[in-house]
Amino acid sequence: MKVLAIAGSLRAASINAAFCRAAARLAPPGVTVAVFPGLGALPLFNPDLEPDPPRPVVDFRAEVGAADALLIASPEYAHGIPGAMKNALDWLVSYEGFVAKPVAIANTSPRARHAHEALLEVLATMSATLVDEATIALPLLGGCVTEEGMVATPAVAAQIQRALASLATFLRSGAAAGPSFPVR
Amino acid sequence: MKVLAIAGSLRAASINAAFCRAAARLAPPGVTVAVFPGLGALPLFNPDLEPDPPRPVVDFRAEVGAADALLIASPEYAHGIPGAMKNALDWLVSYEGFVAKPVAIANTSPRARHAHEALLEVLATMSATLVDEATIALPLLGGCVTEEGMVATPAVAAQIQRALASLATFLRSGAAAGPSFPVR
Repeated sequence: MKVLAIAGSLRAASINAAFCRAAARLAPPGVTVAVFPGLGALPLFNPDLEPDPPRPVVDFRAEVGAADALLIASPEYAHGIPGAMKNALDWLVSYEGFVAKPVAIANTSPRARHAHEALLEVLATMSATLVDEATIALPLLGGCVTEEGMVATPAVAAQIQRALASLATFLRSGAAAGPSFPVR
Repeated sequence: MKVLAIAGSLRAASINAAFCRAAARLAPPGVTVAVFPGLGALPLFNPDLEPDPPRPVVDFRAEVGAADALLIASPEYAHGIPGAMKNALDWLVSYEGFVAKPVAIANTSPRARHAHEALLEVLATMSATLVDEATIALPLLGGCVTEEGMVATPAVAAQIQRALASLATFLRSGAAAGPSFPVR
């Protein structure tokens, strides 16, 4: 069972990127979490490029297509989805392999609601299968803002593990296939 | 009086880019509308680059700083602001010259409300001065999707001219300076 984790920030010390790496280390047996490293390599979305998408877009779509589920962790910039994150999603809008894809969201700044709600709206519009039971709010305060800190903090590590276990249960249940969108 | 028009789509045949060019031709006396050509040249926003921003960002900020007002025309992608548009705004969040900048929005797809409302929320969060009286919904249907079409269609041209005149009136009134954010 393959999960592709995508962080919405390009900052080297990004809390969301740290969360994705922590999730990769905390994945339960039978689940592998790969962290997508290429958000910053994607060109700005341009519909004119769709007939012959740039190489980074082709690679991104292939990774999304090969994943059983996505795990998105994104910051909020000025009460909105970061442009870099939305840009990646814009490239998936016309990609058939995204339709009905199970997606879980981790909100590492639960006091920030706008970007989270905008992500839910955008992903639903893109016909993602939102996995509510694996979508978590994770108040990462104090020292718990690094990969090591998250893995070493029992309450945080347990919450991440529960989310991944819920995602695995959802995928095993077959609900992910969806009744009307068999495209994987 | 200088207005910088920014289209949120990189598509060559973009309706929003056509709107910006039409606005430039329809500007009333004393107002010049320059169309920002560089949205697609901006790198993806990365906070780590803030100490020494890439050249396209420096140029973009300079153009924004030199403008008396911005006119934003953006499409909606999957019920959200296009990533390319939000990315440009992300680069302005920490730019002092944007604070209190008068901004008018043209929604060329009035049936699409999500991106328009998200833009309002983001711009307000960024301390823009939203100029309601110059913000318009412009249902560009049928053949009226090109620069020539907009300029040649009396009702559309008149609406664009009224919006620009309202923006000019707002700027002349001095309201744009704002009581608490004198930074231009």
